[in-house]
Amino acid sequence: MRTDGLSINLATVRQQWNLREAVEACARHGITAVDPWRDQVAALGLDESVRVIEDHGMRVTGYCRGGMFPAADAAGRQAAIDDNKRAIDEAAALGAECLVLVVGGLPAGSRDLPGARRMVEDGMAAILPHARAAGMPLAIEPLHPMYAADRACFNTLAQSLDLADRLGEGVGVAIDVYHVWWDPELAHGIARAGAAGQILAHHICDWRVPTRDLLLDRGMMGDGVIDLKAFRRLIEATGFTGPQEVEIFSAEDWWKRDGDEVLRTCIERYNAACRLS
Amino acid sequence: MRTDGLSINLATVRQQWNLREAVEACARHGITAVDPWRDQVAALGLDESVRVIEDHGMRVTGYCRGGMFPAADAAGRQAAIDDNKRAIDEAAALGAECLVLVVGGLPAGSRDLPGARRMVEDGMAAILPHARAAGMPLAIEPLHPMYAADRACFNTLAQSLDLADRLGEGVGVAIDVYHVWWDPELAHGIARAGAAGQILAHHICDWRVPTRDLLLDRGMMGDGVIDLKAFRRLIEATGFTGPQEVEIFSAEDWWKRDGDEVLRTCIERYNAACRLS
Repeated sequence: MRTDGLSINLATVRQQWNLREAVEACARHGITAVDPWRDQVAALGLDESVRVIEDHGMRVTGYCRGGMFPAADAAGRQAAIDDNKRAIDEAAALGAECLVLVVGGLPAGSRDLPGARRMVEDGMAAILPHARAAGMPLAIEPLHPMYAADRACFNTLAQSLDLADRLGEGVGVAIDVYHVWWDPELAHGIARAGAAGQILAHHICDWRVPTRDLLLDRGMMGDGVIDLKAFRRLIEATGFTGPQEVEIFSAEDWWKRDGDEVLRTCIERYNAACRLS
Repeated sequence: MRTDGLSINLATVRQQWNLREAVEACARHGITAVDPWRDQVAALGLDESVRVIEDHGMRVTGYCRGGMFPAADAAGRQAAIDDNKRAIDEAAALGAECLVLVVGGLPAGSRDLPGARRMVEDGMAAILPHARAAGMPLAIEPLHPMYAADRACFNTLAQSLDLADRLGEGVGVAIDVYHVWWDPELAHGIARAGAAGQILAHHICDWRVPTRDLLLDRGMMGDGVIDLKAFRRLIEATGFTGPQEVEIFSAEDWWKRDGDEVLRTCIERYNAACRLS
């Protein structure tokens, strides 16, 4: 079973292992790329995390996550900017290929969605010089519209690519099938992103029917209704050949299983349901 | 407290009352418009439902619902077409101003979203002559993308208006704040629909944070994050002055309360959070 072209977002096994254990487990299964989360890095320490990843020769396909720019006051927005600069530095230390941004939703008490979107754009503009100096691409991750209020007020590829275009060099998108599979403009958005060199990551999982929880019920590839190979064909048609990164939040299923079983299943399903060649 | 410009979708009180009781309660509260569901009409009988609505002089701002066109085989799709023709006849008997269509998602076992969309278009084309003959406008209701798999594969205003344009006369949209509030192209979509005379209904409720269930946790107006007055301003700017219709599915809150309390609250919140003039 092949593992080339496969990356594991370490949120997928966050309940089973710390970062060191997760990287060791990935290496044991022949997986050569990971995407760690900030809390996982903080728990082990940045230096030690860098060492573990280097010791295992892991490619780091992204670092999760920056963002969360909107805030009710200027101090809150500045705190977010400062924190995002630290995230950029950590991503650079880890050798990550991009910093994934979950940009944030409405500030507490607000109903002003256009205002929140302006805060995101202002925040990204403020950190962009730091990101460029660090050579760290910023990947806007459009999130499913069901997260517009509380996680990300950028919810379609087109909207996110418009923002990337306005911000310019060093900004692209992370395309997660879970968030955008429903979009009637999906094919157009992927083609546009690819033509502009703005695809920075391709995340995979599946959409379960029924979906029992808005946040923590993502499915393993093949267990839902997303046509993952058709999606990947759209991605590869643009010339993007980067890894498919498995990111599954699953409180009642995959997070409760044995970690090795999860990784074995990721590999099996990657081969059966996702990999084109 | 004013009730002009307010309609009650009878799903809002479906756990408290049957159609007769619900219409009587609306009348008692000075409400002059309702939107009944097919199962409510079936439970009382069509003739008796017509009589109750006429006896109370109720305007019928819509009839819920037709749609659900995709099916795994031709017999299933034909059954849906036949059922939609019956729904058109019922809507006409009730004097409804439109038949609301929840168009349907993926057929069982399918991952072919473009194919499902074609089935919707074919199904609507098949019932349209019957709808036109009955003088019954068909209102495509774009549903929130979280329902793309199992309820409606039309999920944005733009996508739904493109379909309405292709089908032509007698087709428009039902615009429910819950489903489209997040859309970055919302203002453009509403303006386009209004300019073409395609706004057939305006449904209201609110988006709770957190939302605890994908289907049955809609909020009362004012309890969530949707800027309902700003939304209504976009609607009225097009010249549409039809009622704002309250449609709340709320298994754990509003469906468990006293029906008169629900209607009183609808009226209060309509005045406080929704009505412009």
